[in-house]
Amino acid sequence: MRIVKSVSSMKRLVRKTKKHRLSIGLVPTMGYLHKGHLSLVRIARKKCRFLVVSIFVNPTQFGPREDLAQYPRDTRRDLRLLRKEEVDAVFIPKEKDMYPQDYDTVVRAERLSTLLCGVSRPHHFQGVTTVVLKLFNIVQPDIAVFGMKDFQQAVIIRRMIVDLNLDIRIITGSIVREPGGLAMSSRNIYLTPSQRKNATVLHTALCHARQAYRRGVRDAKKVKRCLTRKITEKKGRIDYIEIVHKDTLLPQKRLQKNTLIALAVFFGKTRLIDNILL
Amino acid sequence: MRIVKSVSSMKRLVRKTKKHRLSIGLVPTMGYLHKGHLSLVRIARKKCRFLVVSIFVNPTQFGPREDLAQYPRDTRRDLRLLRKEEVDAVFIPKEKDMYPQDYDTVVRAERLSTLLCGVSRPHHFQGVTTVVLKLFNIVQPDIAVFGMKDFQQAVIIRRMIVDLNLDIRIITGSIVREPGGLAMSSRNIYLTPSQRKNATVLHTALCHARQAYRRGVRDAKKVKRCLTRKITEKKGRIDYIEIVHKDTLLPQKRLQKNTLIALAVFFGKTRLIDNILL
Repeated sequence: MRIVKSVSSMKRLVRKTKKHRLSIGLVPTMGYLHKGHLSLVRIARKKCRFLVVSIFVNPTQFGPREDLAQYPRDTRRDLRLLRKEEVDAVFIPKEKDMYPQDYDTVVRAERLSTLLCGVSRPHHFQGVTTVVLKLFNIVQPDIAVFGMKDFQQAVIIRRMIVDLNLDIRIITGSIVREPGGLAMSSRNIYLTPSQRKNATVLHTALCHARQAYRRGVRDAKKVKRCLTRKITEKKGRIDYIEIVHKDTLLPQKRLQKNTLIALAVFFGKTRLIDNILL
Repeated sequence: MRIVKSVSSMKRLVRKTKKHRLSIGLVPTMGYLHKGHLSLVRIARKKCRFLVVSIFVNPTQFGPREDLAQYPRDTRRDLRLLRKEEVDAVFIPKEKDMYPQDYDTVVRAERLSTLLCGVSRPHHFQGVTTVVLKLFNIVQPDIAVFGMKDFQQAVIIRRMIVDLNLDIRIITGSIVREPGGLAMSSRNIYLTPSQRKNATVLHTALCHARQAYRRGVRDAKKVKRCLTRKITEKKGRIDYIEIVHKDTLLPQKRLQKNTLIALAVFFGKTRLIDNILL
């Protein structure tokens, strides 16, 4: 497994790989890998000849009052895990190399980035699209794998690929959950034991909503009220609960096939996201 | 010469060309070609095996009160001219193909796009970077040629290429001028004969400024005042006259090597730009 620490050496490796006509896969991560990440790596491993995993805690997708400095990091452990997955190269660029002095260019989904998580994190998705486009241009993957927990992110990146005429196939991996149902996230380590227990309500409540839909409930307001009540009972402070179309992310008054129920909820200071697709 | 009218067929042609390992050159234009464009085409012709010229009047780089609807078009004449230059393919995409419904992604130079022309045309360069990145991704050129008349545009595109980790070499072509010194521009046809005569002051005044620099004048304010006086005498309404560093586009108080004097001036309703590099 190659460990590549600069943009220029990654580009060199990609040129060599392309010469041998090997298909390239990319799994972009911010490191501190958990089973969710590893499930994406396994999907990618099957779909390409040369698999690159990037580890980069991208500063531009964090807001000024967010957890960039505290974001958990453990590169040595990450590398050990990736070696077991038979990854070909791990790309760990430095911040100065990705955003040199005088850096000026941003990529932005104008509408999609303002919805859902974009309301409370107004610059987040601009940071994501910018860094992902940079990674795409550096690694030149044929396929790239993203997790469904960050559903809006996957929608925005798919949109970017169509809009900017790129030839990359995006594959999404299902949410991987802890035994209690809490969606795997590097941020779960911020939770106290009682918060972690309470946070399992997110998945439980979303499953109840899906059951209600299957029983014939269609009224989005009613479903939202029910979710709000359940989550608030467990001391969750709701950032948003939205019922939207899975592609446009536009609000829907009535539940139907392809409706996405997405939410962001604080437990203490930790903001968790989760979703369910009907 | 191939005339390619859709993104998908252009992509097919590019794939074929890449298979034969031919280097690709791109000259992006908005059509209504003049000698300035053709000089860029000739530069590109020498630097690549497969030369693509694009003709696309890009709506997103026009402001709401600008001349999109009136912008001159003559595709038949353009094609005749390009055939003589031994262009391999002319890419003439439709607006709906470049910006389909639900189009959402923009590319923006955050700082550079707010300077010079960006002050009075706040969305212009976002339109330019977005469409140029799309054209780059569709045509996948090794080299691309831009004119020095749009100096700020070339600076922004160079910045975008570095920032987004693209492997495209940008070549700039000198400004081509009419016999009186007026910089060639598709917009010159908007000028009345007397405006056209008066507009030659732009180049004359810029040349005087350079002579003054060569004589030892260094004070930017003094040079600006002199330019303003000369242009105003010829009924030019000044949008801006700026004395800046050629790479950062930041204002300079003293003239020096690598100083750019750039200006935008209205003659009647027609906004003309010109510049000179010291």
